[in-house]
Amino acid sequence: MSYKDIKDVHEAIVSCLNEVSTEKLRLCLEQFHAVDIAEVMDAVNIAQGVKVLRLMDTGKAATVLMELEPEVVPKLLEGLGRQRTAEIFSEMFTDDAVDLLGELPEDKQKMILDFMHASDAKSVRELLKYGKETAGGIMTTEYVAISKDITAGQAIEVLRNIAPDAETVYYLYVVNNSNQLVGIISLRELIIPPPDSLIKDIMRPNVISVHVRTDQEEVARMVAKYDFLAIPVVNDNNELLGIVTVDDVLDVIEEEATEDIMLMTASMDSEGQEFDVGALQRAARRLPWLIVLLFGSLLAGNVIAGFSSTLEQIAALAFFITVMAGGPGNVATQSLAVVVRGLATGEVTSRGIISIIIKEVRVGLLVGSICGVILAIIGYIWMGSPELGLVVGLSLALSMTVATILGSFFPLVISSFGVDPALASGPFITTIMDVTSMLIYFSLASLILL
Amino acid sequence: MSYKDIKDVHEAIVSCLNEVSTEKLRLCLEQFHAVDIAEVMDAVNIAQGVKVLRLMDTGKAATVLMELEPEVVPKLLEGLGRQRTAEIFSEMFTDDAVDLLGELPEDKQKMILDFMHASDAKSVRELLKYGKETAGGIMTTEYVAISKDITAGQAIEVLRNIAPDAETVYYLYVVNNSNQLVGIISLRELIIPPPDSLIKDIMRPNVISVHVRTDQEEVARMVAKYDFLAIPVVNDNNELLGIVTVDDVLDVIEEEATEDIMLMTASMDSEGQEFDVGALQRAARRLPWLIVLLFGSLLAGNVIAGFSSTLEQIAALAFFITVMAGGPGNVATQSLAVVVRGLATGEVTSRGIISIIIKEVRVGLLVGSICGVILAIIGYIWMGSPELGLVVGLSLALSMTVATILGSFFPLVISSFGVDPALASGPFITTIMDVTSMLIYFSLASLILL
Repeated sequence: MSYKDIKDVHEAIVSCLNEVSTEKLRLCLEQFHAVDIAEVMDAVNIAQGVKVLRLMDTGKAATVLMELEPEVVPKLLEGLGRQRTAEIFSEMFTDDAVDLLGELPEDKQKMILDFMHASDAKSVRELLKYGKETAGGIMTTEYVAISKDITAGQAIEVLRNIAPDAETVYYLYVVNNSNQLVGIISLRELIIPPPDSLIKDIMRPNVISVHVRTDQEEVARMVAKYDFLAIPVVNDNNELLGIVTVDDVLDVIEEEATEDIMLMTASMDSEGQEFDVGALQRAARRLPWLIVLLFGSLLAGNVIAGFSSTLEQIAALAFFITVMAGGPGNVATQSLAVVVRGLATGEVTSRGIISIIIKEVRVGLLVGSICGVILAIIGYIWMGSPELGLVVGLSLALSMTVATILGSFFPLVISSFGVDPALASGPFITTIMDVTSMLIYFSLASLILL
Repeated sequence: MSYKDIKDVHEAIVSCLNEVSTEKLRLCLEQFHAVDIAEVMDAVNIAQGVKVLRLMDTGKAATVLMELEPEVVPKLLEGLGRQRTAEIFSEMFTDDAVDLLGELPEDKQKMILDFMHASDAKSVRELLKYGKETAGGIMTTEYVAISKDITAGQAIEVLRNIAPDAETVYYLYVVNNSNQLVGIISLRELIIPPPDSLIKDIMRPNVISVHVRTDQEEVARMVAKYDFLAIPVVNDNNELLGIVTVDDVLDVIEEEATEDIMLMTASMDSEGQEFDVGALQRAARRLPWLIVLLFGSLLAGNVIAGFSSTLEQIAALAFFITVMAGGPGNVATQSLAVVVRGLATGEVTSRGIISIIIKEVRVGLLVGSICGVILAIIGYIWMGSPELGLVVGLSLALSMTVATILGSFFPLVISSFGVDPALASGPFITTIMDVTSMLIYFSLASLILL
């Protein structure tokens, strides 16, 4: 099946779900990927969901469960009962179980942990202790660790036995007797040499690892940088605790990009997930920012009020307030986006910051003077006053240049305080620019026109 | 080595590069990952770069080359000469070679293709024909394809022979005599059953694949959705042409997130790479948008001018222009960010759009009325006029509610025209809101205050 149209797949799954015979339903669902089944299952009722999860292959049921909306999961598990729940969770990778439980309220977490096999519950509880956005919070404990003193042939034998339980068998981590990470060998490197080669002779001894408390964004950046399929996680003693696999890294990168965009527009706090929350919560998250920004804009209004005598003498100045507030704000946001995104992807390193700011200021001078000339001409033609044209053109040019400087410095300054540079920086910088532009505009107007 | 501080690694590599003895230099560099070496090499001169690439292991040299700034690559290859260049490129995966050449001007492309082995050059030329942002443009041709009629043991033997040349050996693609994709088996599934099992009996027959012309963003979304390490690429006849591996998908996701942010701030066209271009080009990209937006803001100024008699009678109205333009703009951008990001990550499906808009409008009513009440009180206290307080409060509340509606509709409307919803939508929506807010504000002021 070539996946040209996901809608056809969804429809086919829906028609499977209408099968009355349990055996036919089972065979029908077998053709489809668990992720697609989960997408359709979000819409079915609990009773039917329980039926499907009961007859399905356990591993597939685990995947379906992980992909469902978190709030339906406890209801489904209650319907499935203790034994089937335990079976499904023993098929699930620990990191996925942790993700799933992390989304649920504490009483539901407890219920599910009680249902699970004691050993699985123990591993999950241990991982739940780590910060959600750290390497520990996203790692899994199902990795393949081998001793450096066995042979390649023995290692393949180990693999054959534990492969079904490991999340990735494509890297084998080599440890010493104290469980310290001393080497790594990929499955492809293992199958090429003669079977009696010693692991310690064929492994790569320089392993790139992350600390268990490393931020998930940093983990993602390293996996992306080195093109790894997984990265090992160690503690202060270099003991191997788990691995972070590339599928989780993909999720982190998507999550962090969304977070950046949300933060840049002041749509949420840095922990929030925007899609799952209701209108009230959304409003509650945005309101504090909006009120702060409201006072910021009032500050710009205050500047205008301070020049009210100028404004009374030349009423036409009011017509250009939106231009003077909007243009430099846009320019500032552009510079800011370049720097914020550069910091997030690692393309902007501390070495390159100065050159980026210089470049942005040159951009500001260029776009500022061109937009300034255009506005000067329009102002002259519209108002019939060359002096007014000069004032609006010059103000816009000056404000736009200042905007690029502020826009590229602002994220650097707040990131040097250890704050995520994306944090509400878009609207903040526009509001700061409103105040600045009004100051420039009305000062120049008073100077030149009065 | 635990990678706690990348700076230490960089310094260690720099001190390697100071080694005079070729043999010592070679041994010293062996400890480090090619990606880290490349980061340091960006700063060394061509002669030293050539020296390093000559003495290094060929595979590692290929990785270093891929990671360097594209503009230095042709110079280095000229220094290395035809033979060493051919060697290095025969170690490079075709998709990486295509990425590298895609960044270079045509004459340099031709030079490098001439240097390469004829067969490598042929594969690269074929891939260069596909659109850069399609599955064909990011796929590699180094995959493992096996016949459905061989045994598991024979497949492992095939793997042993071609593993060093394949980009991923973790999935084996099963084809029939016409090279049509009929199944897939992972390496872990291959090593578990008895060696004499027939592939056609142990393979999974339902392969999820993408078409060669599928957009890279769609490819990335599928790999992320199904947690694949690679996805096969087929043509209209379901013939296997290549695979897209997860490392390239990571790059696509980062690239697309950056693109969204840049587009949302009108910082570039949809094809552009912001970090590589100079100030002039950046200015040239942003200017058209800024000029369009300038005229948009002038429209808002025009609205103010249309109410100039109102403004002359109540000059204090001018003090609230920045508040009235800023607040609703911010609210609109927030709604827009939620919808744009939801569309990009696939979290907003056509089914869910209406509920998202309704939710956003409720958010708008909530934040609008609260911000409106606050501004009404401030307006009353500041200006001593309850009527003016009423006007500014009511205008802000109304504009903010309209802002959420426009902000959530706008991306949906432009995406229904097949345009990327992120395209310059941030500043556009703020400018549209400027005009709308001014209309609401001055109409209400004329109605209530005159």
